[in-house]
Amino acid sequence: MDTFPSDAQDAPSRPGDAYVQSFARGLSVIRSFDANRPAQTLTEVAAAAGLTRAGARRILLTLQTLGYVEADGRLFQLTPKILDLGFAYLTSMPFWNLAEPVMEDLVEQVHESCSAAVLNGAEIVYVLRVPTHKIITQNLSIGSRLPAFCTSMGRVLLSALDDDRLDALLDASDIVARTPHTIVDRGALKEAIAAVRRQGWAIVDQELEEGLISMSAPIRDRQGRTIAALNISGNAQRKSAKQMVKAFLEPLQDAAQRVSEMVARRG
Amino acid sequence: MDTFPSDAQDAPSRPGDAYVQSFARGLSVIRSFDANRPAQTLTEVAAAAGLTRAGARRILLTLQTLGYVEADGRLFQLTPKILDLGFAYLTSMPFWNLAEPVMEDLVEQVHESCSAAVLNGAEIVYVLRVPTHKIITQNLSIGSRLPAFCTSMGRVLLSALDDDRLDALLDASDIVARTPHTIVDRGALKEAIAAVRRQGWAIVDQELEEGLISMSAPIRDRQGRTIAALNISGNAQRKSAKQMVKAFLEPLQDAAQRVSEMVARRG
Repeated sequence: MDTFPSDAQDAPSRPGDAYVQSFARGLSVIRSFDANRPAQTLTEVAAAAGLTRAGARRILLTLQTLGYVEADGRLFQLTPKILDLGFAYLTSMPFWNLAEPVMEDLVEQVHESCSAAVLNGAEIVYVLRVPTHKIITQNLSIGSRLPAFCTSMGRVLLSALDDDRLDALLDASDIVARTPHTIVDRGALKEAIAAVRRQGWAIVDQELEEGLISMSAPIRDRQGRTIAALNISGNAQRKSAKQMVKAFLEPLQDAAQRVSEMVARRG
Repeated sequence: MDTFPSDAQDAPSRPGDAYVQSFARGLSVIRSFDANRPAQTLTEVAAAAGLTRAGARRILLTLQTLGYVEADGRLFQLTPKILDLGFAYLTSMPFWNLAEPVMEDLVEQVHESCSAAVLNGAEIVYVLRVPTHKIITQNLSIGSRLPAFCTSMGRVLLSALDDDRLDALLDASDIVARTPHTIVDRGALKEAIAAVRRQGWAIVDQELEEGLISMSAPIRDRQGRTIAALNISGNAQRKSAKQMVKAFLEPLQDAAQRVSEMVARRG
């Protein structure tokens, strides 16, 4: 489109420019730390983030200067200041503070765990979770990701998309069977999502994991747009899908409706 | 120390250099979004982050390219991808996955909320929280911050520091009375922290907030270093501080010990 040398032109805004690259590298250094690599040497960070030692050193020193990384001898680790970034996102969601007390009431009522999630690409991301106090709880915390296509919150969120967007996301999805029950046929999956769109809620019966049943309803903003999904997850050995619908659909829909109304009043 | 022109010298690693600055600005744009500013125009972001419009635009486009920000018309907002950064930190803590089931058992036993926090500067940062299902729960989520000096988890974490470090942090603390009970005298505060160091646990009786009593014990790693604090918080109208110690100290210490042993086995 332009005929100027790209050096002079592209700096501010294009993907691939040096500025974007360096910022992306900084974030990839942050993401190189995890449960398997809680503390890393410079060499380990460079390998994990795909950087040269010099590049990794520069970024680690930057992060250290800014208080996001600390060094203990040769080992670097993240500091809790990192959470400020995620916290900015969580508190920027209009329903976030509003939903938690409603979800606690719901858990009290149904004695099953309740979560809220949003869509990010072809995955759902947990943003709130109220566990029930049972021996076995799923290890799903804020920030956890699951595929959208085979989860009830995912189906609620996918059902809110227009057809083009839905097709694009399904194209980007890794549609593989997690259990013998997982719907993997594209046509059947689109029909299941269309059914969710018609009825306004979703149930997924052991498609993600054997023994796990989950049902979800949408949280909507004042314009009626679905901004998140709320779920109740239960154990197939305690209650069948049919029994869960009978026992939990009404309280779930009430809770989702209450949160939506609060969002609308505040928005 | 050096006599070379700073432009040529300082680029890679020093605070104040262009690279550190631009990374810091990117993170400050992320942090400019919150409950009061969930979606912002370019002009608003520039004002909130203290940047020029051109600078804010460049950073927003970078964040958008990387998937951390999305635009809806003139409004920018954060995407859930931001949570990956905080999630990297949370899962990098050796006790994080181990502590949650222990905390759920503890809540089941004592019917009060339980949290875990780490020290960051003069503040504590919540990293885990298991609420009890009562009508009034505190609005404290993962990533929330409170001053260390007047909280029981803070006193446990401060008591693990050597005297020089403790003095430095108290110098950096904003020691103001939150209630008539808050200890604000430096000598009395250091004595309270020394008492925590001797006894190995802390109770704070309505120093943060009227009606709120909290008691805490340390989570330690294999080397015996305090890496986090675990607390139970209760309501002064239900139980006095004395009654809380009698009812909850043993289960709290048991839970902290269990988590510490798991960390040691894994470390």
